[in-house]
Amino acid sequence: MTAEHGSTGLIGPDSDLDQVFELAQQLRVDSVRASTAAGSGHPTSSMSAADLMAVLMARHLRYDWQQPTNSTGDHLIFSKGHASPLLYSMFLAAGAIDEQELLTTYRRNGARLQGHPTPVLPWVDVATGSLGQGIAYGVGIALTGRDLEKQPYRVWVLCGDSEMAEGSVWETLDKAGRHQLANFIAIIDVNRLGQCGPTELGWDTDAYARRAEAFGCRALLIDGHDIEAIDQALATAADGQAPTVIVARTVKGQGVAEIADAEGWHGKALPDDLAERAIGELGGVRHLTVRGPRPPADAHPREPMGDVTIELPHFEAGDKVATRVAFGKALVALGARADIVVLDAEVGNSTHAEDFGKVHPERYFQTYIAEQQMIASAVAMAVRGYRPYAATFAAFLTRAHDFIRMAAISQVTLALSGSHSGVEIGADGPSQMGVEDLAMMRAVHGSTVLYPSDATSAAALTVAMADLEGISYLRTTRGAYPVLYTAVETFPIGGSKTLRATDQDQVTLIGAGVTLHECLLAADQLASDNISARVIDLYSVKPVDADTLARAARDTHALVIVEDHHPEGGLGEAVLSALAERRQAPAIAHLAVRNLPVSGTPTELLDAAGISHPHIARTARDLIAR
Amino acid sequence: MTAEHGSTGLIGPDSDLDQVFELAQQLRVDSVRASTAAGSGHPTSSMSAADLMAVLMARHLRYDWQQPTNSTGDHLIFSKGHASPLLYSMFLAAGAIDEQELLTTYRRNGARLQGHPTPVLPWVDVATGSLGQGIAYGVGIALTGRDLEKQPYRVWVLCGDSEMAEGSVWETLDKAGRHQLANFIAIIDVNRLGQCGPTELGWDTDAYARRAEAFGCRALLIDGHDIEAIDQALATAADGQAPTVIVARTVKGQGVAEIADAEGWHGKALPDDLAERAIGELGGVRHLTVRGPRPPADAHPREPMGDVTIELPHFEAGDKVATRVAFGKALVALGARADIVVLDAEVGNSTHAEDFGKVHPERYFQTYIAEQQMIASAVAMAVRGYRPYAATFAAFLTRAHDFIRMAAISQVTLALSGSHSGVEIGADGPSQMGVEDLAMMRAVHGSTVLYPSDATSAAALTVAMADLEGISYLRTTRGAYPVLYTAVETFPIGGSKTLRATDQDQVTLIGAGVTLHECLLAADQLASDNISARVIDLYSVKPVDADTLARAARDTHALVIVEDHHPEGGLGEAVLSALAERRQAPAIAHLAVRNLPVSGTPTELLDAAGISHPHIARTARDLIAR
Repeated sequence: MTAEHGSTGLIGPDSDLDQVFELAQQLRVDSVRASTAAGSGHPTSSMSAADLMAVLMARHLRYDWQQPTNSTGDHLIFSKGHASPLLYSMFLAAGAIDEQELLTTYRRNGARLQGHPTPVLPWVDVATGSLGQGIAYGVGIALTGRDLEKQPYRVWVLCGDSEMAEGSVWETLDKAGRHQLANFIAIIDVNRLGQCGPTELGWDTDAYARRAEAFGCRALLIDGHDIEAIDQALATAADGQAPTVIVARTVKGQGVAEIADAEGWHGKALPDDLAERAIGELGGVRHLTVRGPRPPADAHPREPMGDVTIELPHFEAGDKVATRVAFGKALVALGARADIVVLDAEVGNSTHAEDFGKVHPERYFQTYIAEQQMIASAVAMAVRGYRPYAATFAAFLTRAHDFIRMAAISQVTLALSGSHSGVEIGADGPSQMGVEDLAMMRAVHGSTVLYPSDATSAAALTVAMADLEGISYLRTTRGAYPVLYTAVETFPIGGSKTLRATDQDQVTLIGAGVTLHECLLAADQLASDNISARVIDLYSVKPVDADTLARAARDTHALVIVEDHHPEGGLGEAVLSALAERRQAPAIAHLAVRNLPVSGTPTELLDAAGISHPHIARTARDLIAR
Repeated sequence: MTAEHGSTGLIGPDSDLDQVFELAQQLRVDSVRASTAAGSGHPTSSMSAADLMAVLMARHLRYDWQQPTNSTGDHLIFSKGHASPLLYSMFLAAGAIDEQELLTTYRRNGARLQGHPTPVLPWVDVATGSLGQGIAYGVGIALTGRDLEKQPYRVWVLCGDSEMAEGSVWETLDKAGRHQLANFIAIIDVNRLGQCGPTELGWDTDAYARRAEAFGCRALLIDGHDIEAIDQALATAADGQAPTVIVARTVKGQGVAEIADAEGWHGKALPDDLAERAIGELGGVRHLTVRGPRPPADAHPREPMGDVTIELPHFEAGDKVATRVAFGKALVALGARADIVVLDAEVGNSTHAEDFGKVHPERYFQTYIAEQQMIASAVAMAVRGYRPYAATFAAFLTRAHDFIRMAAISQVTLALSGSHSGVEIGADGPSQMGVEDLAMMRAVHGSTVLYPSDATSAAALTVAMADLEGISYLRTTRGAYPVLYTAVETFPIGGSKTLRATDQDQVTLIGAGVTLHECLLAADQLASDNISARVIDLYSVKPVDADTLARAARDTHALVIVEDHHPEGGLGEAVLSALAERRQAPAIAHLAVRNLPVSGTPTELLDAAGISHPHIARTARDLIAR
């Protein structure tokens, strides 16, 4: 479908701008070719940004395409992940991939050149495609580079104009401004057209600039198709003086008259005939190769991190200690590892993340009440080899659900903690109660979900999270409850603890967190009626200890599962899934928060929700009597 | 603990400002009394805003406390919901509640004066307490008042300064500016101190003002303890010229020297002795009563809405129609009801919400890519008596999870639709695939979760959602699949459809959406091996048809559940919960998306996830053979 063009050769920092324009045209042509061959994709959204990216890669992006893990190399993030044809065309121009891969695998089954970029590609830091997120990871990486790694790299983020409507973008630019991240540069490709038609602000580039400035960033306004203006703006942006937002007025589908600035072409590959005309108008296929600026030398080679022994905090059995307190103490202990970093969303005195901050202020990051940016920065630090712990109320982690979902696609290792779970929090009322967090976190791909009942297990699990793959979640409780375990106990992921067991058990009570303590009280009550109850601490909700559950089902034929969470997606359904796999079908009662909670004392609210020990004991008796 | 003070009498628009100051002191005193009596709460966060609220309620808030449903009355939203002592003290001053209720029930078990305000109180529109949300509902109500109800009310929102770090606030102010909502006034109580210490911007009130202006709002800077300045600013804000953000510099704990502007007093009730000293310093207990301005007359009494017959769209059995297309057509049909409104987050051409917009542009609201504000505006419209439908990709509803959670606490009726569910979407890749939405939506309190497989049922369920209580969710599919049902079929909530059944069924295949079609193909394949398979369309995921499932379990002893969703919290666990309740324990195989999906064709990706018909047939055979 294409006529070959003679344009070949090397493009680099010393190439004249006419040559850089040829590179831009090549990126446009290759974006058209890749998406038309795939039969889907976003060529017009790629074409608007081609000039910006050509100048960047040829003259400003200090990057070693052969060694993408280079510690000092710049970072490039496509926050407008749908412009993947452009990104992958840049990979081709850099010699990182070949033409065949671009033209025959893009968007195809199992290919690494997916519809939106993910880190299965070595040149991609984070998965994007949910808008308003790439820029947030970019600020996180810039912060990591300057304050943790102390490396000279810059972070360049290409944003779409539509995504500037996402609140997360302004959480992000607020942080860029606050920390004065002079190594951060966002380039907004203001092509005026979104998926459904004109964007909210159209070509009002001044409005974008005013907003960026109001949030503490430097704004540069340019014509995004003026190669010289782009070059000057990128040079200014890289001067190390201030976080910079380049607001580039561009044309969607630039370079091809039939589709330029036209509605109805978002996310559509050009049909073959139009693609052929477009390639012709763009000057045909080129084979230019880019050798852009090299990364600087590494002034701060990283020392080995993480190879130290952690002294677990010690708790006396029977003492009343909140699991959130144990979380804080464990973080402090973990601080001996230089790769541990902790992030807060201004509730660190509640989650006890703050305890870490008092000992290791240089590795403690206050994001204020901006949960999306907290997760984004945590993902960024994980991408750069740190082991982040991010904590807020369990209820408020829902604010960052889309970021957590995307973090799983980025395949990072990340530890989250949600405090103030369940109705147990008491008087503050339902807005502060996390009663859907287990469902949210269990459904995250590859996640580990932990819910300790006492301080000893909470501390041990907190420490274990540092070396888990993927996203792990620790659910903590507000109130103080008796320490159940001594330091000799271990808490393997996927395990459980059987706290009461005899050969005569007639029922098994399964709890975690506050409900385990209620189960123990209920077992005492049942014992006084001569009913022997097994009690299982299901601290590992995902993966779950299917063996122990199946054995309890076989032994006692009756299970009462109790959780301070809505009935859907939490502890109860985790148990049911495990039993279904093992083909066990005991009599089951599932106590969970089915009402809309109000204010009250913890005891009153546990009782109102039907998950307190009197309810458990009564339910167990009924189940046995059935 | 308190000495009575002689100050009684009526405060109203004509009272002099000294009297209004006395009211402010009363609000402070009562905030202290209420929280100290409760033993918890946020008195200092209340005291900073007391002057602002005293002037507002005495002289500017046009409100009938005896008739809070008055159609023209102003709205007051505490976005800083933790300042509930102040809000409830205002209720007392207005005579809406009595002193005993304030002093003996606040934060107590089951009381309507909860830790954070919820609409169980007739003077509260929406639940707040998750920061950065009240302001978003406020903009939604202002939009509703001006553009739908055409009523003269104004919306006043009291914000904390900490919450201005939430991205959602800027989605909101962007909309206030874009729509030039001159009936919207936000008052930021800049008391400089958050939960953990100084806020990000401290007393840099200029920064807040610059940001508000950059987003298209008018900003007014005042000393939040200067009664006259407050009065002038509120008068200006209410002039109907522009959306206004009043940036008020205040002191946390204002009026009590021991705690004023002091760290460590966030969210703490004053101990008895300090409370007594504080009340003394504040001039003692007062019993002033407020009669503020009255609402204007109703120029547009609302006509009855919703009492029309909806003509369902018709689909021919066997035709291939996407459920998202049927959703759009059903919305158009529903448009005959004047209370139906539709909201989009700039993907209306994908979700087909746009079809409604083409016919009823005056009831179609484009929020651009700002899912949090889309849900907030939908909640606001629901609060005002409309029946909103809000739609985006299923994956991107996660962005608004915290708003959806809070909407349940606000107990509104709200219909959501998520399109592009599952790996079925194909080449766009995992960032665009909703594979955790069922878990999220099932765990919402009181929710209804629907997942139709064909156009006829999708249309019928879409229409049914208009009259469901609470939050309902319709999951739609990208691709077109055969219409299974004719117009004579009905689809009750909590029902299911059994598409294949004989007395000889050896296995039951359970699917919904795309997997139902795969189940039908698998049943054909099994039939050719002389295995008779029952097939159930489980279109109602919550509530689920436990009777039919239990019968299938009894009849066939083997179930294969297939879902295009992660294994946690979705269709499979809904079935397991239903069977556990009915004490049925068939052999169960649960096919779900357990891999991290990539790009590919729908067929390839269903197959890679192990949820395509060959996998289903093979699993069924294995299950029978066990």
